[in-house]
Amino acid sequence: MTQTTAKDHAGEQDVDLTSSALGHSHTNGHTNGANGINGVNGHASKLPELDASRITVQLADPNAREVPNEAVANTGDETICTDHMITCKWHYKTGWTAPELKPYGPFSLMPVASVLHYATECFEGLKAFRGFDGKLRIFRPNLNAERMLMSTLRIALPGFDPKELEKLITILVAQDGPKWLPRSRPGSFLYIRPAIIGTQAQLGVQASKEALLFITLSFMPRMDSPPGGMKLHTSPEDMVRAWVGGFGYAKLGANYGPSLLATAEARARGFGQILWLYGKEGYCTEAGASNFFVLWKAKDTGKLQLVTAPLDDRLILDGVNRRSVVELFRNRLAGEVEVVERKYTIDEVLEADKEGRLIESFASGTAFFICPVSLIHHRSQNVKIPMGKTGEMGEYTAKVKGWLKDIMYGIEEHEWGVVVTKE
Amino acid sequence: MTQTTAKDHAGEQDVDLTSSALGHSHTNGHTNGANGINGVNGHASKLPELDASRITVQLADPNAREVPNEAVANTGDETICTDHMITCKWHYKTGWTAPELKPYGPFSLMPVASVLHYATECFEGLKAFRGFDGKLRIFRPNLNAERMLMSTLRIALPGFDPKELEKLITILVAQDGPKWLPRSRPGSFLYIRPAIIGTQAQLGVQASKEALLFITLSFMPRMDSPPGGMKLHTSPEDMVRAWVGGFGYAKLGANYGPSLLATAEARARGFGQILWLYGKEGYCTEAGASNFFVLWKAKDTGKLQLVTAPLDDRLILDGVNRRSVVELFRNRLAGEVEVVERKYTIDEVLEADKEGRLIESFASGTAFFICPVSLIHHRSQNVKIPMGKTGEMGEYTAKVKGWLKDIMYGIEEHEWGVVVTKE
Repeated sequence: MTQTTAKDHAGEQDVDLTSSALGHSHTNGHTNGANGINGVNGHASKLPELDASRITVQLADPNAREVPNEAVANTGDETICTDHMITCKWHYKTGWTAPELKPYGPFSLMPVASVLHYATECFEGLKAFRGFDGKLRIFRPNLNAERMLMSTLRIALPGFDPKELEKLITILVAQDGPKWLPRSRPGSFLYIRPAIIGTQAQLGVQASKEALLFITLSFMPRMDSPPGGMKLHTSPEDMVRAWVGGFGYAKLGANYGPSLLATAEARARGFGQILWLYGKEGYCTEAGASNFFVLWKAKDTGKLQLVTAPLDDRLILDGVNRRSVVELFRNRLAGEVEVVERKYTIDEVLEADKEGRLIESFASGTAFFICPVSLIHHRSQNVKIPMGKTGEMGEYTAKVKGWLKDIMYGIEEHEWGVVVTKE
Repeated sequence: MTQTTAKDHAGEQDVDLTSSALGHSHTNGHTNGANGINGVNGHASKLPELDASRITVQLADPNAREVPNEAVANTGDETICTDHMITCKWHYKTGWTAPELKPYGPFSLMPVASVLHYATECFEGLKAFRGFDGKLRIFRPNLNAERMLMSTLRIALPGFDPKELEKLITILVAQDGPKWLPRSRPGSFLYIRPAIIGTQAQLGVQASKEALLFITLSFMPRMDSPPGGMKLHTSPEDMVRAWVGGFGYAKLGANYGPSLLATAEARARGFGQILWLYGKEGYCTEAGASNFFVLWKAKDTGKLQLVTAPLDDRLILDGVNRRSVVELFRNRLAGEVEVVERKYTIDEVLEADKEGRLIESFASGTAFFICPVSLIHHRSQNVKIPMGKTGEMGEYTAKVKGWLKDIMYGIEEHEWGVVVTKE
């Protein structure tokens, strides 16, 4: 019944536990101190790190599978992956094993594996492109690799040097690119999915002492030009995607599963995605699993502004395409369009619409690329958004989409389009 | 640029998408309309339901594995499961297959399986007890089965009749109970873990069109009496467990993984669990993955009150032990202790401590059973909580724990202790 100070407890300081835990992992180097597990278990250092140069290779029969047409590849209920995948195991006592490039196939997981119960999982999504110049490119893979490390640490899985992950991604693309993204199909892409899961076969709410990192390469439908543009339904009042102090900024499985119910319902009503609002104010955050942009004339100055939610409250994903859009607008449209990263509400969007100031809107993400938004349904109102002269998308949406496409497919040589040289 | 009303969009009403989606699943019966998938895909009805009577049985060699001592069983890094498990597959076009009782062993899952990326998973936890009267009992399994259905629907997986799940649980316990919970070990228990995961091998943020329900039976450490009581560390300011409009009330994997980082850090500092606070006010919600109770003298009346967070804002889990504690206090201590389910803040707890009104505290859950709390560390303060005359736990904590134990182990015949008759 006595109150005492923290001094009664040795060594603790009153800092935030999360920041503190993340701090450990960074000061211990990227890897094995990741979640304090090794420290707790007395294996704090010198365990093998993730190392792409140690990769072992077991090739599939190159003639066993044919590459389907893009249209056919995306019609079934299963994702078609390429011939190979890369896997790498981690154990808290032995660190990272040598990565393996091997034929794509199923994993064996115990029923009590951590990932199946506690969502100890995170992932990334990026694309490999076959350029019109014949070259194979990956778009800004360093950003995905760095974000994957951030997500991995957030879900208490083991860290790694993101440069090694980037190398592994490149190795897989170099291996399967020539067959699955042939030079005869310029302008096509494959989807790269790195992921890490907690595999320890132990029930109990605790950080996983074993993990599996893996990378697959697969077909994915083109989702950037739904007929008539993407229609958004604002999020239901009884459902929030992410919240301040949560983990909306990290690419955790835990951000996706709980959103499926509302998304399925919205789709059944003819909408493409949910526009996730936050708080009583109704701040616009993300469109489905994409970042969300509005182009309007500013209320006060009448000048053109591209508005998107800010990163600083950590509600939204720091999207690679989001960042690229912001950078391209700032570099190439300076003076013409002002880019504003700030909180803005659905009411501001409705007001801009009423006053004729709403010019364009689009979503950006790896899956949806740059996807024009043609309608927002909010409570009892439908806001129709201009789709340009052709009806396909607005002028600025088309402009930024074109710039990005040119970089991805090698029409413009740009440092963001990293050429895979060893294919 | 025109604003129109919802009438432009056929058939939609401005209701909450989530409630609406959940509404469908309930009106379609429990099962295959669960997440609207069948409706969307045109298979709205008449698919096979989950049906325990269709179970197929493939037995393990009964002599292949020995049953370890409880102490040995819980020392390793892997959970020891019994000889058998039950699995049952669901597919959106074909409904539920016949459940299988078969030897415990690994699952084969494709790398792109939904559960590994989007946390399409939920689970339950309950226990089977070998009574001092020689009987095998399960504690209130109907409540777990019903909650599992609720969680399953929330994560957009297929529904089922909870009575069938309860039957399957009973079948597994009846099968492995005689060997793994022998009559020679009265007073022992096994942990039952039903779970359901999304197994569709397709990337893309969407409800899984395939699922796997499974039940395992395993050892689990006794966690209800850590030496000196459980010490709690309040949650960091930069981390929130659950939020209004979220899914804290459902037993989703997505509630657990993101909490591991802070929990690991708290444990490294000598605390057992995080006391999760909510909002600027610092409302007490859950202790780790358990419900949290405080017994104090009310500020206004001086009367004994047992206080715990309410269910109505859906922040916390509707724990079976929580409910049982509330019911036992209300039935057996009426007039002596008032049970109050309301929002209360950590400041109120600190104040009660300062004023000498803080009597006892405990956490309740399946894993932690009834676990006395001896200390709460909040920001720079340590609140020490009385642990009774013996130093093991307070008087009321001991009382309710004893009542529950008696019911679980058959010292008191009670409807909550469901006897497994067919072993």
